[in-house]
Amino acid sequence: MDTIGYHYIVEAAGCDKEILGNPDTMREILIQAARAGDMGVRTSYFYRFAPSGVSGVVIVAESHLSVHSWPEKGYAALDVFVCGETAKPEQAIHFILENLGCTDAHVTEIKRGIQDEDVYTHAMLSWDETLRSKTA
Amino acid sequence: MDTIGYHYIVEAAGCDKEILGNPDTMREILIQAARAGDMGVRTSYFYRFAPSGVSGVVIVAESHLSVHSWPEKGYAALDVFVCGETAKPEQAIHFILENLGCTDAHVTEIKRGIQDEDVYTHAMLSWDETLRSKTA
Repeated sequence: MDTIGYHYIVEAAGCDKEILGNPDTMREILIQAARAGDMGVRTSYFYRFAPSGVSGVVIVAESHLSVHSWPEKGYAALDVFVCGETAKPEQAIHFILENLGCTDAHVTEIKRGIQDEDVYTHAMLSWDETLRSKTA
Repeated sequence: MDTIGYHYIVEAAGCDKEILGNPDTMREILIQAARAGDMGVRTSYFYRFAPSGVSGVVIVAESHLSVHSWPEKGYAALDVFVCGETAKPEQAIHFILENLGCTDAHVTEIKRGIQDEDVYTHAMLSWDETLRSKTA
């Protein structure tokens, strides 16, 4: 199998604080997002850490999604990493950001597993995204 | 809790093919690495995918470690993401690379959760590392 993977590093701001603090809701959003992105869900693990954040991972056949949230700040650190060409990671990310009520996201897409003779490297592309106005 | 996190994206080349293909060995290495890096292990999930790779995640109190391997290429895509200031992620990474028999690693350190008024961004620092000569 090709080593190329696409890894999205996302800083999500302005999210709904109640959602960010609820591990069951966060699990449901990430699993639905993986399915929306044509990924095969294998398992998931979510838990609440003190005082109020949620950490979670969804393992998919194509690699993984993870999230770590700070409800009091409306902030979540999100990762979506997929290998192969069949998944649609950007659809999964949009699904998550919409369902978190995110207003602004800073995203870096990293192309991983780029072979250069005997070594492997990665390459990066960044963008900012404003999803909705806070006053909307 | 502060939102700052340190996320290491690692492309590990020249690794031992037998180790990369064994999910039990890979789990043991990542769990020991998390402990070597002063992280609190919560749970782990590793599995072999067809034809021969391993995917795995270790959830730690500080965030997570993940790996996806291609034994036939001697290559592994590794992530170590920690929040807070007590963990020693670079010790964990060195432990993993040494135990995989890695000869060359391309690493990007991403400082995550950098607050700028109402939004969050990240910043990057890359390095290459040659761990041992193949002829040593």
